[in-house]
Amino acid sequence: MSRILLSHGAGGREMTTLIDEVFLARFGDPNRVGDDSATFLLESHQLAFTTDSFVVDPLFFPGGDIGRLAVAGTVNDLLTAAARPLMLSASFILEEGLEIAILEAIADSMNRTAAEAGVPIVTGDTKVVPKGSADKVFITTAGVGLVLRPGVSGAAAAAGDAILLTGSVGDHGTAVLLAREKLLDGEAIASDAAPLTGLVLNLLEAGLEVHAMRDPTRGGIASALNEIARQSQVAMEIQEARVPVAPAVAAACEALGLDVFKVANEGKMLILVAPGDADRALALVQQSPYGREARIIGRVSAGPAGRVQVRTVIGTARILDPPSGDLLPRIC
Amino acid sequence: MSRILLSHGAGGREMTTLIDEVFLARFGDPNRVGDDSATFLLESHQLAFTTDSFVVDPLFFPGGDIGRLAVAGTVNDLLTAAARPLMLSASFILEEGLEIAILEAIADSMNRTAAEAGVPIVTGDTKVVPKGSADKVFITTAGVGLVLRPGVSGAAAAAGDAILLTGSVGDHGTAVLLAREKLLDGEAIASDAAPLTGLVLNLLEAGLEVHAMRDPTRGGIASALNEIARQSQVAMEIQEARVPVAPAVAAACEALGLDVFKVANEGKMLILVAPGDADRALALVQQSPYGREARIIGRVSAGPAGRVQVRTVIGTARILDPPSGDLLPRIC
Repeated sequence: MSRILLSHGAGGREMTTLIDEVFLARFGDPNRVGDDSATFLLESHQLAFTTDSFVVDPLFFPGGDIGRLAVAGTVNDLLTAAARPLMLSASFILEEGLEIAILEAIADSMNRTAAEAGVPIVTGDTKVVPKGSADKVFITTAGVGLVLRPGVSGAAAAAGDAILLTGSVGDHGTAVLLAREKLLDGEAIASDAAPLTGLVLNLLEAGLEVHAMRDPTRGGIASALNEIARQSQVAMEIQEARVPVAPAVAAACEALGLDVFKVANEGKMLILVAPGDADRALALVQQSPYGREARIIGRVSAGPAGRVQVRTVIGTARILDPPSGDLLPRIC
Repeated sequence: MSRILLSHGAGGREMTTLIDEVFLARFGDPNRVGDDSATFLLESHQLAFTTDSFVVDPLFFPGGDIGRLAVAGTVNDLLTAAARPLMLSASFILEEGLEIAILEAIADSMNRTAAEAGVPIVTGDTKVVPKGSADKVFITTAGVGLVLRPGVSGAAAAAGDAILLTGSVGDHGTAVLLAREKLLDGEAIASDAAPLTGLVLNLLEAGLEVHAMRDPTRGGIASALNEIARQSQVAMEIQEARVPVAPAVAAACEALGLDVFKVANEGKMLILVAPGDADRALALVQQSPYGREARIIGRVSAGPAGRVQVRTVIGTARILDPPSGDLLPRIC
């Protein structure tokens, strides 16, 4: 494989390989554990630092737009490190000829989302490329946070942990795909794109024993759970019937041949919490506007290391593989 | 003006207007002063935070490549805030079909440049877009630094300050343009792209009274000096004959109709230092490998606020306007 494929950006196996072989082989930090945010000690403070680029097509879709996504995505990545977001940067690559009104609408949305997330956008950059050298607007955000609870990491899940999911899955990916392809009744499904600052900080402030968090974006919960199982060298079992899926999303995924567990979410969190704190964590999350449909969807067990299993509605078990292949390009 | 033009990304007047009217009008921080890095107080520490996107074409050029540029650019922006670079992020937007060997060469270069700059690349992201939706590779870096000397800012220049320039101007922009257009003998001019960590930290550690620093990238020293003069509400005069320009660069700019003072540099710093420390600052900078050709090129005076003047070799004075128009697209 000598050229970049769409699957290299899709959040599945091919992306992991590319990142391992091209980037980590060079920039690799022996302490790196595969989390969405890096952490860094500055005297007595632990900082979290993360970045993401956004290339979603179309720019506007039911429930969100590239600007909301760019802010929420980076905020949620900081939260996975149990960090309070402190500041964001935003860098724009613009195609010559883009309507300025579109850029203004995106900036308005970023501003609203940043206000909701409680974090300022403090620095940025703008580049313009000739028509045809980029598709309208790409945005890269980075964020710095202050770690409130050191040690929360995809590598810290432990046997017995409850797997809490903050709401329904598949909304974002199907909403964007339907909007792009103008398929079905796109307006019936809205993206869940949202910053989860309040939800996560409530949990941390309550002092509950949270071990790991991950926002199931590209590759969906299949990718996120497999990553954590691999990082922590544990097994997981989730109950298919306990994973909330909106009926319209289920129908769309069925019609499009998509596995809803592999479809991107942009306003959900998987939270792995010690068994004794699971009920309190669930009750707290359900008090947040973005957590009303939260459920405990499964449990962590000691092994076999890296195995994620789904217990189906009829009681059989199947392996939930990490996704591979093209999945959905330009979904975020 | 309702659409994005190439000039909106060129580092001149149009870019300033776009940033003011679209971004600062929304994200604007009343404390913002127009520096390349934002600063942020975390209890007793002041942090600097900055980001830049890189879309240079071609990806490889004499003296550098997009990877070296992406690391050096963000490191140098942190340095302008008198900050020691602590960590970098790197986010890639890749075009489907890109040769992986190209990406590996870029990552190698980033790794070498980061090592030279003394800063680790700790987090990143990769997105892939379908062929034709982007041009090969775009990179966005962000960086966090620890401010060693609070108050160094483009807004802090004072009447009497010496204007120190760390070396020759115009090398980067002309090198990229010649490589792209395959004009003249491109190999005769190499980009100056370099991280200036050692040079700047030496100055700061010596305790010299540095008031302002800016790396004269897009828009060249014309843009950087006008920005500082505007931020600090001071006037400046530089001596044309004291600004180092390599003969090959001067010849290329002459042939191409470019004003070398408006051409991008990627390894130079303008340093405004209190008059009593100017000679020591110059001697220290000249000891750095990237500062051997450093010169004091001019002085700051009290007013008229915002005016930057060039004293020509024949003794006349002309106003050095901030650049406007297309300048050179995709130069960084």
